[in-house]
Amino acid sequence: MAGRPRAMDEFDFIAAHLAPLAGPGGLDLKDDAALLKPSAGKDLILTKDTMVEGVHFPMGHYGGDTAEKLLRVNLSDLAAKGASPLGYLLAIAWPKDIEPRYFQGFASGLRDVQDAYDFKLLGGDTTVIDGPMVVSATLIGEVPEGSMVKRSGAKAGDDIWVTGTIGDAYLGLQTVLGQALDPQPNARALWHFEEAYYRPEPRLLFRKSLRQYARACADISDGLVADAGHVAKASGVNFVIDADKIPLSSAAGAWLARQVNQDEAFKQLITAGDDYELIFSALTNDATAIRKAAKAIGMRLSKVGTVKSGEGVTVTSDGKAMRFSKTGHKHF
Amino acid sequence: MAGRPRAMDEFDFIAAHLAPLAGPGGLDLKDDAALLKPSAGKDLILTKDTMVEGVHFPMGHYGGDTAEKLLRVNLSDLAAKGASPLGYLLAIAWPKDIEPRYFQGFASGLRDVQDAYDFKLLGGDTTVIDGPMVVSATLIGEVPEGSMVKRSGAKAGDDIWVTGTIGDAYLGLQTVLGQALDPQPNARALWHFEEAYYRPEPRLLFRKSLRQYARACADISDGLVADAGHVAKASGVNFVIDADKIPLSSAAGAWLARQVNQDEAFKQLITAGDDYELIFSALTNDATAIRKAAKAIGMRLSKVGTVKSGEGVTVTSDGKAMRFSKTGHKHF
Repeated sequence: MAGRPRAMDEFDFIAAHLAPLAGPGGLDLKDDAALLKPSAGKDLILTKDTMVEGVHFPMGHYGGDTAEKLLRVNLSDLAAKGASPLGYLLAIAWPKDIEPRYFQGFASGLRDVQDAYDFKLLGGDTTVIDGPMVVSATLIGEVPEGSMVKRSGAKAGDDIWVTGTIGDAYLGLQTVLGQALDPQPNARALWHFEEAYYRPEPRLLFRKSLRQYARACADISDGLVADAGHVAKASGVNFVIDADKIPLSSAAGAWLARQVNQDEAFKQLITAGDDYELIFSALTNDATAIRKAAKAIGMRLSKVGTVKSGEGVTVTSDGKAMRFSKTGHKHF
Repeated sequence: MAGRPRAMDEFDFIAAHLAPLAGPGGLDLKDDAALLKPSAGKDLILTKDTMVEGVHFPMGHYGGDTAEKLLRVNLSDLAAKGASPLGYLLAIAWPKDIEPRYFQGFASGLRDVQDAYDFKLLGGDTTVIDGPMVVSATLIGEVPEGSMVKRSGAKAGDDIWVTGTIGDAYLGLQTVLGQALDPQPNARALWHFEEAYYRPEPRLLFRKSLRQYARACADISDGLVADAGHVAKASGVNFVIDADKIPLSSAAGAWLARQVNQDEAFKQLITAGDDYELIFSALTNDATAIRKAAKAIGMRLSKVGTVKSGEGVTVTSDGKAMRFSKTGHKHF
């Protein structure tokens, strides 16, 4: 398909910047398609996410940060299924007057994530758009046959677990958008929040234990409450979460403690999204083994609630249900 | 990932219009990801294509025609590899003020192609864009292990073959854009040209023979000359094509014969692209078997030239090489 960027021929971009990122199945990106030889006894998991400039990433951020985020959010989808990444296909619609310097930066961002998680580019498709930049990636991963972790499967009585911490990415986004946090955190906290926004760590290391213990799982992209809701709905149960058990980083906690309206600020943290942590349910009998598995990989893990019969998500604080006007959205 | 269309919640679109299109691996599109259980002894082929409104399809064409074209062009990529389609992942960025009536039309277009070629939706991702519509599909197909037809592999001495006819889609596009052809063809020819543009037939039926006989193959999307060039380059050879052997439909031939500058008009037909036919090379010894195989499925097939040592593409007419100012591009 042809659509030529003004500054650089799209084939040049692919050859110059993307081909070095390709794995064997990518056939040096010179072919129409990519080849994948599946391993015996494995199921394949495919996930696809699209990011639009101004909706999913800030206006003008055409370089490595956006490339990293694109791959990381897709890896998080795979992590939520207990899958290992194999490779990905990439589609980029470059804004029509983009400066060529972004090409190198974008490709570097891809390379960093490929190297970190040991998977490769299989195919690329670039075009030009007279509008916002649009990037999309299709990731392919694998799990041992029949062991994909789904969203359905949570049962009344299960423990509800959340990995990592919640809310740092939201605070990072405010900083990135130039909206000073009040009070302004120290430099270390600021750096922590921005890293959480740009470089969330997909929980791939936990995949074996997730496949072993999780009865249902989703990654937290839209927001803790919204994604808990997806699992609850797919499983046909009620997720009851104790607000006091939701894990916040010390930096986020310090910020929260200084807010005038702490209830509203807390709700923002648990509904803003972009966390790319996992929320999953498991049998109470497995709690000890699960904690041990998390500790073995140095991953923070918090038991935040219990699955009950019913539907939806209930977040309680001091025994009372919190009310939410919205459960998860993004805007820039 | 969240980005809400104003008129309809994206989850509603997926549930209402896309979920009925999903196959078993699509898990009713309620999960983060899609599941694919590969068959033993098969390799998987993945292809991805993106279409941007105003670049790859005409402005405002948000419905079934665009949906069909998106899938058909991707199926053509699979056909060029000798693959059978299994399923696809879809990403749609809807323009922000789009009327909801297009959702139904778009989904119907998808359904028509799914039903025609027996494959299903595995996953969907919808978002909103403040700009042109952007749609992209990742198709997954399979071939018997090790039998994928690549672009590399053509050798000096091979015959060069082209399926179907060339140039009808270009003429169809002019019509679609409201640029009257001169002279205006009759209604039947017009319908033929428009169908060629909107509903190219991916050459999937030929896949078994293609795998058996083709030494290299590409589908013709950018233009006959450009795509012959891709195969020539990947194979490290020179494609020598006889202009008089390039197949044109009778309607296109009639149009051409009435053009003032026939040379230029002919060059337009063989460089404009969007044909979604196949160009492949094969041993001369297999010519008879190849013709027989094409006849068996009622597919037009033309031997257009010979592969030689060297590089690039040479199109000869009356024994002299034709000159091209451009080899393949699209603009609206």
